[in-house]
Amino acid sequence: MLTLYDDAISGNGYKARLLLHQLDRPYELIELDILKAETRTPEFLAINPNGRIPTLKLDDGRCLSESNAILFYLAEGSAYLPSDPFERAKALQWMFFEQYSHEPFIATSRFLRLHREQTPDVLVDLERRRSGGEAALEVMQQHLETHEFFVANSYSIADIALFAYTQVAGEGGFDVAPYPAIVAWLDRVRAQPRFVAMG
Amino acid sequence: MLTLYDDAISGNGYKARLLLHQLDRPYELIELDILKAETRTPEFLAINPNGRIPTLKLDDGRCLSESNAILFYLAEGSAYLPSDPFERAKALQWMFFEQYSHEPFIATSRFLRLHREQTPDVLVDLERRRSGGEAALEVMQQHLETHEFFVANSYSIADIALFAYTQVAGEGGFDVAPYPAIVAWLDRVRAQPRFVAMG
Repeated sequence: MLTLYDDAISGNGYKARLLLHQLDRPYELIELDILKAETRTPEFLAINPNGRIPTLKLDDGRCLSESNAILFYLAEGSAYLPSDPFERAKALQWMFFEQYSHEPFIATSRFLRLHREQTPDVLVDLERRRSGGEAALEVMQQHLETHEFFVANSYSIADIALFAYTQVAGEGGFDVAPYPAIVAWLDRVRAQPRFVAMG
Repeated sequence: MLTLYDDAISGNGYKARLLLHQLDRPYELIELDILKAETRTPEFLAINPNGRIPTLKLDDGRCLSESNAILFYLAEGSAYLPSDPFERAKALQWMFFEQYSHEPFIATSRFLRLHREQTPDVLVDLERRRSGGEAALEVMQQHLETHEFFVANSYSIADIALFAYTQVAGEGGFDVAPYPAIVAWLDRVRAQPRFVAMG
């Protein structure tokens, strides 16, 4: 059976949990507490030297980390990843966009607001992340004004990757109401078969 | 023919240029100057709404951005991307590591040092990026102490992705001399057939 190392507060972990549920793949969940540095123990660093969840362990003991690499691996051969090479690369394009241009602003702001004391330094850090988060939402809004989903007009791992933290953007201080195409897309994702909510 | 929108100062663009050369794929190069905001013109935003190079345009006009998605697309079916699904996912794992845990520290520090006035704010920003860059180099060093390359013991797009900015880490203020396995790996990459240097 698959084993998923995860923390319930993580949207990156939720990506894997959502896809595993939608694929009806059973797995053992091992919960680690990021806030208690349980991802920095020698035991876990042997599993992922980068010290981050989610990490997936296969039956044979091999381990895979990085949420979007896990999504790609699990979705191979399913309806959640297009088979056309260009469409697959477009899914990756949006997933790299998510990790570089979205997550460090929106997800990190959420983490700082929910799990850190709001010291002057933290408030400065949050302010510095504002324009990047807004730019990411603008790019998503523009795409979704003319597309139902991010790739090939069907729900895929690119949507899962971007849904994870966009659905809780408000907790990071980013109101999605001014982005109506994003609001409608969030509802389309929630309406997918076997959808499960985060947390 | 393929068209690559790129700026010679970009290590992300170099990834695509190196692989295109190693694959012996001809392409037209359209150079844009990041420092003059030529990636933020209406014309280029129509090609990549996220306003970043590199972006690849296919014969039929379809466009693909995000350097590592471009690598994955170009390498499909070649020796530069393993065919085994788990190994492919491991290549992606390292490429997501590169974009999330390496590039924002090492590449951005290089950009700030080479292309921005060294104001007090910039110096604070550089200092803030130091520990992340060192952590990324530690993870690479640890892996390379027991592996010749990042995935499947052969040179792949995971190596190209990580080589691009590690080779110029010194320009970002990160000395790689204390990481001998990285130094040896850099030489192994430079010794690959049809290798071309950056810039």
